[in-house]
Amino acid sequence: MKFCSHCGSDAVTFSIPEGDDRPRHLCGGCGAIHYINPRVIVGVLPYLGDRVLLCKRAIEPRLGLWTLPAGFMENGETSEEGALRESWEEARANIRVDDLYTVYDIPHINQVYLIYRGELTDTNFGAGPESLEVELFREEEIPWQEIAFPIMSETLTHYFSDRREGSYPLHRGVITRKL
Amino acid sequence: MKFCSHCGSDAVTFSIPEGDDRPRHLCGGCGAIHYINPRVIVGVLPYLGDRVLLCKRAIEPRLGLWTLPAGFMENGETSEEGALRESWEEARANIRVDDLYTVYDIPHINQVYLIYRGELTDTNFGAGPESLEVELFREEEIPWQEIAFPIMSETLTHYFSDRREGSYPLHRGVITRKL
Repeated sequence: MKFCSHCGSDAVTFSIPEGDDRPRHLCGGCGAIHYINPRVIVGVLPYLGDRVLLCKRAIEPRLGLWTLPAGFMENGETSEEGALRESWEEARANIRVDDLYTVYDIPHINQVYLIYRGELTDTNFGAGPESLEVELFREEEIPWQEIAFPIMSETLTHYFSDRREGSYPLHRGVITRKL
Repeated sequence: MKFCSHCGSDAVTFSIPEGDDRPRHLCGGCGAIHYINPRVIVGVLPYLGDRVLLCKRAIEPRLGLWTLPAGFMENGETSEEGALRESWEEARANIRVDDLYTVYDIPHINQVYLIYRGELTDTNFGAGPESLEVELFREEEIPWQEIAFPIMSETLTHYFSDRREGSYPLHRGVITRKL
């Protein structure tokens, strides 16, 4: 942040406001404090029988790699609504949500993932503008070396393991920066 | 947002960028799109035996009403770390977290709540700067008419019900604007 979005001043510093304990974008002109907080990524693990739907990314980052449909939660929606919206946008997928499935923190990039689990209600899915391809994969067909994000690999691993057990508890985790 | 935080221009409109489907704060000067997304509130339901710890708010909104310790998640922390940080800041409470307990969406104010459940490890709690008082309450002592936020009433109701059952599954919910 170079300029204050309230008053337009260029006197914005990254310093600790009085009474606070960490630096914020602080305007020396009007005194406004601009808070920046983590963002929520919402998505779905869509399944049909023994297969899971993945999207091949048409955009950076990780263009050409596979992921579960997910994206930034928008204002005015619930996390479940956002997850279904992303599934439609990226995979044209119609889904009946079962439950919240994984909650992951990724603190080094200030993100919280909420991934739901849901059954495809039909097979009329297809690539949205942010996907190159959308396909159903059995466990042994998953392109593990071409999964875009660790959170998605972990969610898929939990799913196939839980499927064998016949029970789908909520899983929590933290993705840390690789050294 | 009146001024662009990238270039300082006052030509910021709230309009739909090309290729998008909803209005954003869009700078007519440099072309920057300023996304605003929901924020995450993290907190804890701290218990000890058959009692739950509540904080009487020293700040607006809802000054003088009771709540579970909670606040905005900060960049660089996990949701569990944030929940413990808020418990310390508001109630000087030391807690051993059991698990994530409630996930609530409040879409009309663009918030997602993640409330953990955890046992107090000692009774050395006390009011932090944002609390007037901090107290332990048995179920029959809870000031139900003086709870600051509906999400907190719902979380407390789930807790005492689950305590009778001896099992604490994750609860999800949506708080909608009262008509």
